[in-house]
Amino acid sequence: MQIITGFSKLNKSERVDILRKHVPLSEEQVILLSNFQGEDIKIDELIENISENYVSNYVLPFGITPNFLVNDRAYFVPMVTEESSVVAAASYAAKFWSDKGGFRTRVLGTKKTGQIYFSWEGNIKKLQDDLPILKELLLSVAKPLTVNMEKRGAGISDVTLSYGGDYHILNVEFETADSMGANLINSCLEAMSPELLSFLKASYPKVNPDAEIIMAILSNYTPDCMVECSVECSISQLSQISGDLSAERFARKFELAVKVAKENVQRAVTHNKGIFNGIDSVLLSTGNDFRAVEAFGHAYASKDGKYTSLTDVEINEKGFKYTLRIPLSVGTVGGVTSVHPLSKLALQIMGNPSAKELMQIVAAVGLANNFAAIRSLITDGIQKGHMKLHLNNILYQFNANASEKERAEEYFKNHTVSFKSVSNYLESIRE
Amino acid sequence: MQIITGFSKLNKSERVDILRKHVPLSEEQVILLSNFQGEDIKIDELIENISENYVSNYVLPFGITPNFLVNDRAYFVPMVTEESSVVAAASYAAKFWSDKGGFRTRVLGTKKTGQIYFSWEGNIKKLQDDLPILKELLLSVAKPLTVNMEKRGAGISDVTLSYGGDYHILNVEFETADSMGANLINSCLEAMSPELLSFLKASYPKVNPDAEIIMAILSNYTPDCMVECSVECSISQLSQISGDLSAERFARKFELAVKVAKENVQRAVTHNKGIFNGIDSVLLSTGNDFRAVEAFGHAYASKDGKYTSLTDVEINEKGFKYTLRIPLSVGTVGGVTSVHPLSKLALQIMGNPSAKELMQIVAAVGLANNFAAIRSLITDGIQKGHMKLHLNNILYQFNANASEKERAEEYFKNHTVSFKSVSNYLESIRE
Repeated sequence: MQIITGFSKLNKSERVDILRKHVPLSEEQVILLSNFQGEDIKIDELIENISENYVSNYVLPFGITPNFLVNDRAYFVPMVTEESSVVAAASYAAKFWSDKGGFRTRVLGTKKTGQIYFSWEGNIKKLQDDLPILKELLLSVAKPLTVNMEKRGAGISDVTLSYGGDYHILNVEFETADSMGANLINSCLEAMSPELLSFLKASYPKVNPDAEIIMAILSNYTPDCMVECSVECSISQLSQISGDLSAERFARKFELAVKVAKENVQRAVTHNKGIFNGIDSVLLSTGNDFRAVEAFGHAYASKDGKYTSLTDVEINEKGFKYTLRIPLSVGTVGGVTSVHPLSKLALQIMGNPSAKELMQIVAAVGLANNFAAIRSLITDGIQKGHMKLHLNNILYQFNANASEKERAEEYFKNHTVSFKSVSNYLESIRE
Repeated sequence: MQIITGFSKLNKSERVDILRKHVPLSEEQVILLSNFQGEDIKIDELIENISENYVSNYVLPFGITPNFLVNDRAYFVPMVTEESSVVAAASYAAKFWSDKGGFRTRVLGTKKTGQIYFSWEGNIKKLQDDLPILKELLLSVAKPLTVNMEKRGAGISDVTLSYGGDYHILNVEFETADSMGANLINSCLEAMSPELLSFLKASYPKVNPDAEIIMAILSNYTPDCMVECSVECSISQLSQISGDLSAERFARKFELAVKVAKENVQRAVTHNKGIFNGIDSVLLSTGNDFRAVEAFGHAYASKDGKYTSLTDVEINEKGFKYTLRIPLSVGTVGGVTSVHPLSKLALQIMGNPSAKELMQIVAAVGLANNFAAIRSLITDGIQKGHMKLHLNNILYQFNANASEKERAEEYFKNHTVSFKSVSNYLESIRE
């Protein structure tokens, strides 16, 4: 194969030229790439600078969900998703809970950990004894990096040692306040690493000089960044959404559906995925790193040895209570959040929340999406609302006019929606 | 709180009007919402129809990574991500492996499962005996839905029963060919559910009539949608990227870094997150559902009771081999993939792959990103490349001119990059 070099150093149109030499693209498709760029070149250049090898803007619908009552404050929540009915489902649940006290949330912490993995054959007990001296040293090295965050009540809160077999781990605990903190943590760890190495070599000169840093990196394992989010109502209030079921029966069926997700990994995966449908859409809109939240969210779901549901339901004489416990590491300053004009706007729409406040909103949206999904599953089935939206999409693609749309909506109440079936139907009524 | 009703039925500008009544937005911010819409109204309406409560397009950079050699075929891979250096890292690894045989991948299957959970107090052994009859019945009910997919070699491949305590499970296995299949599977299951219920009631009239469908839904647990992807080279070839380390030492340190991720959940989460940095960027560009892939990918990482690395390294006399095994459920027809003009273009850029081929490309990008991350971690550290890109972003925001940019790049070779430090530096040289 012919290896392409210097691609990242080209500008957008040069990249497209190379692409066209290797891949058949029509004139129309090349125009499409430009069509997705905005009118303001300055803003497009901001987007271009976020990542590398840019050729266009990729777009997703930016939607707004009203009526999210979280800890007595009403929010409009910006959501970005490619999946139809995610925003609709969140809206449905947000509205239902808005006159029942809304979402109650509690942040259990925002601490994060960075780790320096190193191999060293010295006396680890002695090193443990010397840890206070080492800690002082490492903190002073990191000082220039942490001095600004200390003003915001953040900084390094602890340094501990753990012992592996072939390697040891220096754990550095950070309080990152409103930033996600990835760059800061990694910069601190990388500044500390050579100091740690010098310390090992200077303090224990007789030891094998092969002491070596394996790697230094933040951990996305953030068990201290937990949010607990609950909704609560009387059983009778559930009759507003229980369809053909009685409120009591709805509650019991809901409970059984959650039990199924607790007990079956096949269901737990899909159940939790529905939570992330909501969560990721808010993370995307605010420029947060959804991969980090996904990774530990799902790993956390398997913390007791078996992957299980992240939500719990409780039904008693006081009523129905539904709770999500999830680790959520997010930021509202720094990174893309501070660069992307639409992410800044997304934060503005939520009243420029702190990281803790954003964690609570995000958890509420996750719980809302899961709640709405289970409600659909145990009443009408998930496809009813979903397929209506899907039908709209397909009709749109076939340029259906208002009368065709109306007839199709009527027809597909009792017929199955697919690209093919809608195409056939439109052909039949257009003949 | 004042509950907002009918929000979804409004048009974009009416939604923005409501939003402005509740949230302080400047004229400039409202213009921003319009700025991100393209020139072609027809296309914007397509995007609007993908989800609900649309007020604008959210944009992310659409980048292209050249030089991906997968099973002897060279690809340009479209990647969409908000995280800087993800595309750069993938490019780096793709190029390194491109003259060493590239990525070798194997798809172990594409089967998916849907489940009907039901409660019933009848004789489950008898039902098991009657399963062949029930199966015939259910297949015939689903026939109108599956007839089209059968032409493409897809369809329902099996129906089995499993027994819970309070509930039972009817597992329906689907071969979905090139579609992700979510709508099809859910539609089939919902068509089958009332038939299952009638069968239970008609065949066993003496049994408690409370037989009930709890829910019917596809499972994102897709252990049959596995991809295995490997790269392989001689140890000496690693010297091209081993920095100050010898090739042999690099290989051993790489092995140790993977061992760390195998043994420590704190590291495993971050290690796997790096795989998804690459994977999700391709899923986003092609309109695929990344939450589904994330959910089962991470659950799969905990399948043996402890969350661990999804990759394995092997070093022997033949050389260095690095392998990723991951479940990947993707589609190349149907859903957003067929609606979104840029997703269609993304597929075109990759030569319109089948679902199986896309699974292989996606896995290769995941492995590439993880490989590049570990290489950085065990040589220069992750921050070097990352902070350079971060510096560019910040300079851009401060409107740095070419000479300021050059001076800042020189200065920050030995100083720590942060929003504040760059701002201070620019102020100092501008005075």
